[in-house]
Amino acid sequence: MRQGRGMKIKPDNRPLYQQAEEALNQLMKGLSPGDKFPPEPALARSLGISRATLREALRNLEEKQVITRRQGVGTFYNGPRVTIDSGLETLASVDALAQRQGLHCTTTGLEVSGGAASADDAATLGLTPGAPVTIVRRVKVADGRPIAYLVDVVPQSVLAPTDLPQGFDGSVLDLLIARRDPAASHAAADITPVKAGKELGARLQVPASTVLLLLEETIYSRDGVPVDLCRSYFVPQFFQFHLLRRIAF
Amino acid sequence: MRQGRGMKIKPDNRPLYQQAEEALNQLMKGLSPGDKFPPEPALARSLGISRATLREALRNLEEKQVITRRQGVGTFYNGPRVTIDSGLETLASVDALAQRQGLHCTTTGLEVSGGAASADDAATLGLTPGAPVTIVRRVKVADGRPIAYLVDVVPQSVLAPTDLPQGFDGSVLDLLIARRDPAASHAAADITPVKAGKELGARLQVPASTVLLLLEETIYSRDGVPVDLCRSYFVPQFFQFHLLRRIAF
Repeated sequence: MRQGRGMKIKPDNRPLYQQAEEALNQLMKGLSPGDKFPPEPALARSLGISRATLREALRNLEEKQVITRRQGVGTFYNGPRVTIDSGLETLASVDALAQRQGLHCTTTGLEVSGGAASADDAATLGLTPGAPVTIVRRVKVADGRPIAYLVDVVPQSVLAPTDLPQGFDGSVLDLLIARRDPAASHAAADITPVKAGKELGARLQVPASTVLLLLEETIYSRDGVPVDLCRSYFVPQFFQFHLLRRIAF
Repeated sequence: MRQGRGMKIKPDNRPLYQQAEEALNQLMKGLSPGDKFPPEPALARSLGISRATLREALRNLEEKQVITRRQGVGTFYNGPRVTIDSGLETLASVDALAQRQGLHCTTTGLEVSGGAASADDAATLGLTPGAPVTIVRRVKVADGRPIAYLVDVVPQSVLAPTDLPQGFDGSVLDLLIARRDPAASHAAADITPVKAGKELGARLQVPASTVLLLLEETIYSRDGVPVDLCRSYFVPQFFQFHLLRRIAF
């Protein structure tokens, strides 16, 4: 590695744009929220990379919402990331996770409706297709920024739209945990990376091309009855999910 | 839902392009690999959606490698998805996962090198920055298609480049599991959705905008010593990761 004031990137194990991203992360440690980046040609030169590689790294940082790029104006640092750190093995609501980290999590755009279960959702929930379900949709906000979009589909036999208490803040899971019968106990979750797309991007105030982590889970009661089908779309900037994996013998 | 030959999409809980994607999945059940799609205007009409929504759904299917779109020629069905279904709690190599499902998994582009640990990697592995590590990179291929890109960084005190056995097929984890001292036991994994980008996209033969699931894990020996830092980039089309989550009381 070259010594000196310029951060020179020497090829290591990772793709060049990732190394460039790391160098930019280093650079941002010296910036305050709102600070402007040097112009692209100077920045590429000082990092010893091509402008194409720099742009790829900048695009990634923009998608992670670390920076904001304004056409013809420049690139700005948004400030440090707010991250909710969570062990994925534990079933907990976004609200509970945020609270554990001292973050205040609120709900916007709450939509509660009654409807008929789609064929897929009915199969997952052990219902007849078209059976009545309660659908709860909302955006979770922390520190004024949307961090997740959640959709719960609950059999109306478990929860009718009118069962939602006054001042409901949008945590169906916490509601089901607090209940005695049937109480939520565990969930089978599928993990998939997805793109936000236009609609979800607009709700979460991120570009349509942003990658999200989709956790699609069926929540079961203690006696193994499905009580909630929950789809959570997490903006990765705000979450760090980890997991302990063990060798099976 | 309208009855009849045309599949009409009625607004349900999900973004329109996701519903369109589901309708296209239904349509593909009647196709054979290599079959061509109807022209876009006719397809949008028969699904009762705008061409913009159709194009978003098609773009998603293309990124999942379910279809191939050729400029000016048409859209083609690639054939059924090959999926490796795995419980994430269990630490197992991609090879072992594939084998369990009767898939033959091979390695291409194997690169084994000795190098100096980066500051970050050294910190994770409990080494001095610059300490000698063995770096193993390769693409995993199943049924002739790249399904994952793996990078292992192993302290040379655990594994020197010359320690890799004759006919090494690229599973460092299986090598560490088979060993007695130090034997791999468990891993702490971070899960992040990422974009392939140009370099990784080229290695995995997917568009640069494809979303991948990155599993970044530190593998520990039974006595808690980090023995391997493994970054796995999974092409989501080929993997279905699930997880059991339990409420902590």
